[in-house]
Amino acid sequence: MVEDQVGAFIPGPRTERAGAAEGPLAGLTFAVKDLYDTAGDVTGYGNPDWARTHPPAAGDAAVVTALLEAGARLVGKTKTVELAYGLTGENVWHGTPINPAAPDRFPGGSSCGSAAAVAAGLADIAMGSDTGGSVRIPASYCGIYGIRPSWGAVSLTGACPLGPAYDTAGWFTAGASLLRRVGDVLLPPPSGAAATGPLLKVQEAWVNADPETAAALAPVLEAAEGVLGLALPIHLAPEGLAAFYEAFRCAQAVEAWTSLGPWITENDPAFGPGVKERFAAARGMDPAKASAGRAFRRIVQARIRALLAGGAVLVYPTSPSPSPLLSASQAEQNAVREKTMGVTAIAGLCGLPEVTIPAGRVAGAPVGLSFVGAPGSDRAVLALAELVSQAAGLPA
Amino acid sequence: MVEDQVGAFIPGPRTERAGAAEGPLAGLTFAVKDLYDTAGDVTGYGNPDWARTHPPAAGDAAVVTALLEAGARLVGKTKTVELAYGLTGENVWHGTPINPAAPDRFPGGSSCGSAAAVAAGLADIAMGSDTGGSVRIPASYCGIYGIRPSWGAVSLTGACPLGPAYDTAGWFTAGASLLRRVGDVLLPPPSGAAATGPLLKVQEAWVNADPETAAALAPVLEAAEGVLGLALPIHLAPEGLAAFYEAFRCAQAVEAWTSLGPWITENDPAFGPGVKERFAAARGMDPAKASAGRAFRRIVQARIRALLAGGAVLVYPTSPSPSPLLSASQAEQNAVREKTMGVTAIAGLCGLPEVTIPAGRVAGAPVGLSFVGAPGSDRAVLALAELVSQAAGLPA
Repeated sequence: MVEDQVGAFIPGPRTERAGAAEGPLAGLTFAVKDLYDTAGDVTGYGNPDWARTHPPAAGDAAVVTALLEAGARLVGKTKTVELAYGLTGENVWHGTPINPAAPDRFPGGSSCGSAAAVAAGLADIAMGSDTGGSVRIPASYCGIYGIRPSWGAVSLTGACPLGPAYDTAGWFTAGASLLRRVGDVLLPPPSGAAATGPLLKVQEAWVNADPETAAALAPVLEAAEGVLGLALPIHLAPEGLAAFYEAFRCAQAVEAWTSLGPWITENDPAFGPGVKERFAAARGMDPAKASAGRAFRRIVQARIRALLAGGAVLVYPTSPSPSPLLSASQAEQNAVREKTMGVTAIAGLCGLPEVTIPAGRVAGAPVGLSFVGAPGSDRAVLALAELVSQAAGLPA
Repeated sequence: MVEDQVGAFIPGPRTERAGAAEGPLAGLTFAVKDLYDTAGDVTGYGNPDWARTHPPAAGDAAVVTALLEAGARLVGKTKTVELAYGLTGENVWHGTPINPAAPDRFPGGSSCGSAAAVAAGLADIAMGSDTGGSVRIPASYCGIYGIRPSWGAVSLTGACPLGPAYDTAGWFTAGASLLRRVGDVLLPPPSGAAATGPLLKVQEAWVNADPETAAALAPVLEAAEGVLGLALPIHLAPEGLAAFYEAFRCAQAVEAWTSLGPWITENDPAFGPGVKERFAAARGMDPAKASAGRAFRRIVQARIRALLAGGAVLVYPTSPSPSPLLSASQAEQNAVREKTMGVTAIAGLCGLPEVTIPAGRVAGAPVGLSFVGAPGSDRAVLALAELVSQAAGLPA
C-alpha cells in the first residue's frame, strides 16, 4: 500500500480489492469517492452522522464492479465534501486533502480525495461524481484530467444521490489516454455523436475567467485549433452566466432537499460550515424559483444541444481561476464559487459531457481547459482531448 | 396584359402561357428570368449575341413546367444581367429595370427583371437564379421576399449555367405566405432538416452592414427572437468575410469560364461594362487561386453545416446597405459589390438556403433581413420567415 501523504483517502483501514486477472485496465489501480458503495463497507458520504446511520453496503456500486471486471485493482475510498455539497474540497471531519499540485491551495471538491489521489500518484484512476462541477473543478485545481460524462451515460447505481437530474459519475486520471480508456470501459457503446468541430469559444466563460487564466490556456487552445480549425467566438448566454448559475442553484437545491432532506430532518446531523448553510438554503428554496430554474434549463438545453448536434465543441476555462488559497476568506471563496458555477452550469444544466485537460499554470497553480460536446458524444470528446493533448505536448 | 411601366420584361412580344385549370397556384401569375427555357422561344440570357447564336428552346425549363402544372399562368420573361454575371441589375442592351421601391436606385441583379416585376405587381411570382446573390440582393433592394434554395434542391434543367456548383433556382414574391407556397411546389418533399433555432447573429455580417441598415433591421430581428428565442452573437468567419468573397470569386470564376468560355471564345460577343471585365478576369483566373478557393470552401462548409445541423438559423442583413444610387460611380458600385458578396458568399459557398424578408428602409430604400438554415431546411426556413413576418406585421 502506497503511503497517503496528501490525505486523499478516508480515515481507517483502506478498502482494497483485486481486479480481474485480465482486462483492458489490468495492472492499473483505482480509488473511489466515498459515495460509491463497496460491499461490506459503510459508505460514509463525508459525514460521520451519515456513516453512523447507514449499514454496510450489500454490494458494489456499478462502476466499482465494472472497473474490477476490467482488471483494475481497488486501492481505497477517497474523501468527499459532506454529502458532495461543496466545491473547495474541505472536510472538517476527515481533514481536507492536500492539493499535490499547489499545497497552499484547496484541492477542489466535492471529489477532493479522488483528485488528490490521482495527482499524488496514489491511484491511476479515481472515480468522482459531478453534479455542479465536483469532478471538473478539482481536476482543474489539481492539474489532472477529468470527465463529467453526459447525464445518464455512466451508471450511478450504488452511489449516494445529490441531485438526480444533474448527478453524473465521472473520473480522473493523470493522462489523456487513460482517461479515454476508462471511458471505453464505463461508457455506453459508441454512438453517432461526433466532436468534429467547429470549436465554439464561449465568450461569456472566457470573459468571466481571470485574464491570467485565459492567457495561460491560450497555447492549448491554439493546439486545439490545429486539430479542429479556428475557434469561433460565440455568446451562448445572453441572459448572463449568473442566470445560468441561479437556475442551476435553485432547481438543483430542490432536488438535493428531496433526496437528502428526509435524512437530515430525521437525524439532525452535524455539518461543517458552508455545507450546513447550503442545506439550510436548499430546505428554504422557493418552489417558484426552482420551477423558473427548470424552465430556464429547458430553454438553454434546447439552445445548446441544437448547436452541438452536428459535432460542434464548446471550449472554455474549466475554472475561471486557479484554486483559492487555503487562507482565502469565506467571502473570497463564495465569490470564486459564484463565478465558477456560472461556467460549470453550462454542462450541468444541459447534461453535456465535459472533459477538462491540465492546460496551464497561473502563479504556479494549475488551470484546466474544457471541451464540451453534445449529449452522448463522450467518447468523441475523450478522443479529441487525447488528440489535443498530444498536439500540445501534455501528458498522454 | 398588364403594362410594364418598370421595364421588367425583355423587349419583344410577351411570352404567355396558361397554367393548369386547377392546382395550388391556380389564379396566380408568374414570370421567369430570361435564362429559363420556354418552348419555342430563344432564351436570351441578357445578351443579343447569345440570342443570335442560340436556337429556340425545344422545351420548357423544369421550373416552368412545375409552375404551369401547379396552375400558375406565365406572363412573361424578365430581364437579366448579361449571362447573370452582375449584382446591380444593369443591362445596356435591354435597359435596366426600374426599382419600383426606389426608382433612383438600381434594382439589383442579376435577376433584376424578376424582382422588378414582383415589386411592381406585374407578377405574383417570379423565378430568378442565384449563384452569388442574384435573387437575394434584388429582393433586398426592391423590398420583396426572395429565396435562394439549398444547392441542388430545385431543378435547373432548362436553365443557362453560370457556375454549376453554385447555381440555384430561386424565386420572388411580395408576401411570405406565397413564397412558402411556391416552395411547396418546387422543393423536394419535407426532410427532417429543421429551423427551430437558436438564432445565430453572424457578427461579421452585422458589423459589415452600414449602421443605418443594421438599425433598420432591429425590429424584425426582435420579432424573430420572439419566435426562436434570444439571438446568439457568433463569429463565423475568423478569416474575414473578404476571404469568403475571395474564395467564392476565384472558385466560381473558373466555373463560369468553364461553362461559358467556349461560347465567348467562339463568338466574341459584345458585353456591357462590368460584365466584360468580369469574364476577362474569369478567363485569366489563376488555377491555384481557384483551387485554394475550393479548399477554403470545404473548410467553411464543414464548419457552418455542422453548426446548423441541429436546427440553428443564421440571421444577418441580406445586403450591407440599400441599393446604390443610379448615379453612383463605378468605384462606389465596386465597393458595394465587394462588401455585399462577402455576406452572400456565406450561403453561396456552403450551399445553404437563404430567405430574405423586406424588413426595413434606409433613407426610404428597402433592406432585407436574411434567415439561413442547414442544407435541405428550405421548407423550414420558409415557414420560419412566414412566422417572423406575421410577428413583425410584414406582408403575409
